Amino acid sequence: MSAADQPIYGRVALIGLGLIASSMFWGMKRAGLAGEVTGYARSQETRDTARKIGLCDQVFDSAQEAVKDADLVVLCVPVGVMGAVAKDIAPALKPGATVTDVGSVKRQVIDDVSPHLPTGVHFVPAHPLAGTEHSGPESGFAELFDNRWCLLITDAETDRTAADNLARFWRGLGSNVDEMEADHHDLVLAVTSHTPHLIAYTMVGVADDLRRVSESEVIKYSASGFRDFTRIAASDPTMWRDVFLNNKDATLEILGRFTEELFALQRAIRQGDGDHLHDYFTRTRAIRRGIIEAGQDTDAPDFGRGSAS
Amino acid sequence: MSAADQPIYGRVALIGLGLIASSMFWGMKRAGLAGEVTGYARSQETRDTARKIGLCDQVFDSAQEAVKDADLVVLCVPVGVMGAVAKDIAPALKPGATVTDVGSVKRQVIDDVSPHLPTGVHFVPAHPLAGTEHSGPESGFAELFDNRWCLLITDAETDRTAADNLARFWRGLGSNVDEMEADHHDLVLAVTSHTPHLIAYTMVGVADDLRRVSESEVIKYSASGFRDFTRIAASDPTMWRDVFLNNKDATLEILGRFTEELFALQRAIRQGDGDHLHDYFTRTRAIRRGIIEAGQDTDAPDFGRGSAS
Repeated sequence: MSAADQPIYGRVALIGLGLIASSMFWGMKRAGLAGEVTGYARSQETRDTARKIGLCDQVFDSAQEAVKDADLVVLCVPVGVMGAVAKDIAPALKPGATVTDVGSVKRQVIDDVSPHLPTGVHFVPAHPLAGTEHSGPESGFAELFDNRWCLLITDAETDRTAADNLARFWRGLGSNVDEMEADHHDLVLAVTSHTPHLIAYTMVGVADDLRRVSESEVIKYSASGFRDFTRIAASDPTMWRDVFLNNKDATLEILGRFTEELFALQRAIRQGDGDHLHDYFTRTRAIRRGIIEAGQDTDAPDFGRGSAS
Repeated sequence: MSAADQPIYGRVALIGLGLIASSMFWGMKRAGLAGEVTGYARSQETRDTARKIGLCDQVFDSAQEAVKDADLVVLCVPVGVMGAVAKDIAPALKPGATVTDVGSVKRQVIDDVSPHLPTGVHFVPAHPLAGTEHSGPESGFAELFDNRWCLLITDAETDRTAADNLARFWRGLGSNVDEMEADHHDLVLAVTSHTPHLIAYTMVGVADDLRRVSESEVIKYSASGFRDFTRIAASDPTMWRDVFLNNKDATLEILGRFTEELFALQRAIRQGDGDHLHDYFTRTRAIRRGIIEAGQDTDAPDFGRGSAS
C-alpha cells in the first residue's frame, strides 16, 4: 500500500465493533494507516471478545473515552442509532477531528448526526460497499474492502482536506473511492442493494410458509436460484431493519417499479406470451456482461454451486 | 465410482448438446457409465463444435440416427420442444430402451412426451438440480453433478428396473438421487428455483430501466445483493421462457404468495413498523442455517464477493 508510507491518522476510533469495524481494524494494521486504533462497543460481551482477540489497540468501556484525541472517528453502528451515538460522543470530540460513518443509508444519517457535531469537527459520511452475511467482532478480515467501492458523500459544504484524507484512508484499506451526493446514493443503493435484499428476504419467507413443501425439501433442493437468496437473507436483521426504515422513500419507489414489472411478467406467463418473456430475459443478460467487464465479478461458472465441494 | 464397475448402458444417446448434455458426457467418461455415447443437436454449428471438441463418440446429423440402438436416450432440449423431439425419434427407438429427460418442469413434459413413445419403451423423467449461468456445448464439465440432487419422477406405473438403472446412472455421475411425483416436483421447483429466477430477472430489468441511475453506476456499485441477481438473470433465456410457460400454475401460485408477503413488508416499511421487519429478517436466517447444515453450501463468507480477486 504505497499510499500509506506514514499513518494518515494518528488515532482512529471505531465506535461499534462488528463486521465492518473489525475488518477496518485488520485492514488498517495491514497497511499501517493509523498510529493507534481505539474501540468501543455497547455490549460488554463484544468488548470482552474484542479484547480477547486483539481487536483494537485499546478497547474502552465508554464511547466518549474511545473518541478522545481521535483524529478520525468511525461510526460503525446500525443506521438507526447513529444520531444517539453522535450526541453521546459530541462533547468528547477533538477540535478539527473528522467524523465518518459506514452506514448503508446516507440522507437520514446526515440529518441525524450533523446537528450534534460541534463546529470545527468535519463530518464526511461514507459507505463501503462490502460485506458478508456474517456479523460480529470475530467476522472481520483485512481483505474485505479490497477492490470494492467506498462511496464518500460530499457536497459544496464538505471540507476538502478532510474528504481527501478519508479517500486516501479508504484507498489504503484496498477500496476504490467515488464521491456522490446523499440522495443519489440512497437511490442507487435502493436499486443495487436494498430492494434486492428485501426481495430475497421475502422469497425465503414464502418458502418457509409453504406447508405443502417441507422445509427439508426446500433445503435439499435449493441448488438453483434460491440458495443465493438465502445467503442474502442471512444478513444481520437489525442492520437491515434500519436500512429500510431509513431509506423508506427510495426503497418504496423501487419496490413500486419492481412490482409493476413483475406483474407484467406474471401476465405474460398467464397469457402464454413467450416472446415477451424471451425478450426480457435476453435483455437482462447484457447487464451481467457489463458487471463482469467492470471487474466486479468473474466469469467462472459457479452459479448454484458456490464453494460447495 | 464403485457403482459403475461396468457400463450401465451399452449405448447412450444425448439429444441436444448444451450445458447439461455436455456435462453428462464428460461425467459418463469419467465414471465409465456407457459403452458408447452418441449425440445430436439441431444446429449445424453446435454439431460442428461437438465434433471439434470430442463431445460424444459419434455426432449424427439426425436425432433418429443418434437414438438408433441406444439403451438410454436423454432429451436435453428446452422443455417447450420435448414433445416434438419425442415424436421425431419415436420410430427409431430400440424396444426396451429407456427414455429420460433433464427438463426443469415435469408434468407438462410427461404430457408432451408420453403419447409419442411406443409400448415397451420406458419413460423415466429426471431433473438434475445443477447448472451454471453458461450454456452451449463448450460449457460442460464432468463435476457439474457432483453432490447435487437429481430427482427422478416415478409413480405406480414406473418400470422399476428402468428407474433403478437410471438412479444408478445418476449416482455414477456424482449425484444424490431422490424420487418424486411430477406435480409435487413442479411445486417444489417453483419455490426453490423458478420463482426466484423470475424475481431476479425482474429486479435486473428494473435497474436497467431506471433513468436516474446510470448503467455504469448499477454495474460499479453492485457489490451487495444485486450481483447475485445478475448471475441468476444471465441464464439461458429460451430455457427459462419454456420453464415459465410450462410450469404456469405453480409459478403463478408462488408468485401470488410472494407479492402478498412483499406487500406486507412494504406496508411495514411505509408505516415504520420495525418490529415486523426485524422478526421477519430473523426468521429467514434460520433457513440459511438449515441449508448449510444440509451440506448444500458452505459457511464461507463470500457473499457479495464471489471469487473476485
